[in-house]
Amino acid sequence: MNLSPGQLDILFQALGDPTRRAILERLARGPASVTELAAPFDMALPSFLGHVRRLEAAGLVATAKDGRVRTVTLVPGAFTPVRGWLDEQRALWEGRLDRLDDYVTRLMKERANGSGSED
Amino acid sequence: MNLSPGQLDILFQALGDPTRRAILERLARGPASVTELAAPFDMALPSFLGHVRRLEAAGLVATAKDGRVRTVTLVPGAFTPVRGWLDEQRALWEGRLDRLDDYVTRLMKERANGSGSED
Repeated sequence: MNLSPGQLDILFQALGDPTRRAILERLARGPASVTELAAPFDMALPSFLGHVRRLEAAGLVATAKDGRVRTVTLVPGAFTPVRGWLDEQRALWEGRLDRLDDYVTRLMKERANGSGSED
Repeated sequence: MNLSPGQLDILFQALGDPTRRAILERLARGPASVTELAAPFDMALPSFLGHVRRLEAAGLVATAKDGRVRTVTLVPGAFTPVRGWLDEQRALWEGRLDRLDDYVTRLMKERANGSGSED
């Protein structure tokens, strides 16, 4: 994956807020108008819109205006870079555990052979 | 998963920085001293230590001091809450696509039946 570090920064930072994650959780169930989205939050509309704009800037949601209604939708595949980074970390970690496992197995074989010749 | 929103905030915010992600990538290959970790970065040591402390506060790394050497290790399973949240989003999204699929299939069957009776 050829992602600039900046894109991952923006994505992770966008996800590091409970209101923004709640918006994404709601949108995973389907598109919603800004008014619908804002209803569960005890927050001034400008602050709420700031969160929506932040998600839009991160490429996590898209908005479209039809008359007076602005509809917000989740961008398909928007979490892919974040998943990709986590998958890479898991692969590195598992690679390390495999190497440790090989090393311990070799060490135990060498010991078994060593103690066998001493008997 | 019973995670407080605050824990996810701290984790995502900790991951939203290129230096901190690079430290985690290095540690996925195995533990390292602070000196080794800091070497590739053109950064004053206090700033670098601030990043290590931030990762430690998020529960992503653990540090231990042995004499003058402080060793940093990745905490196993530290990414689990982040993965858990992403998995939940995927499940919600896929559930929605399945329902859409069912709806379209039903609609097409009704149309096929409807146009059949009109013929």
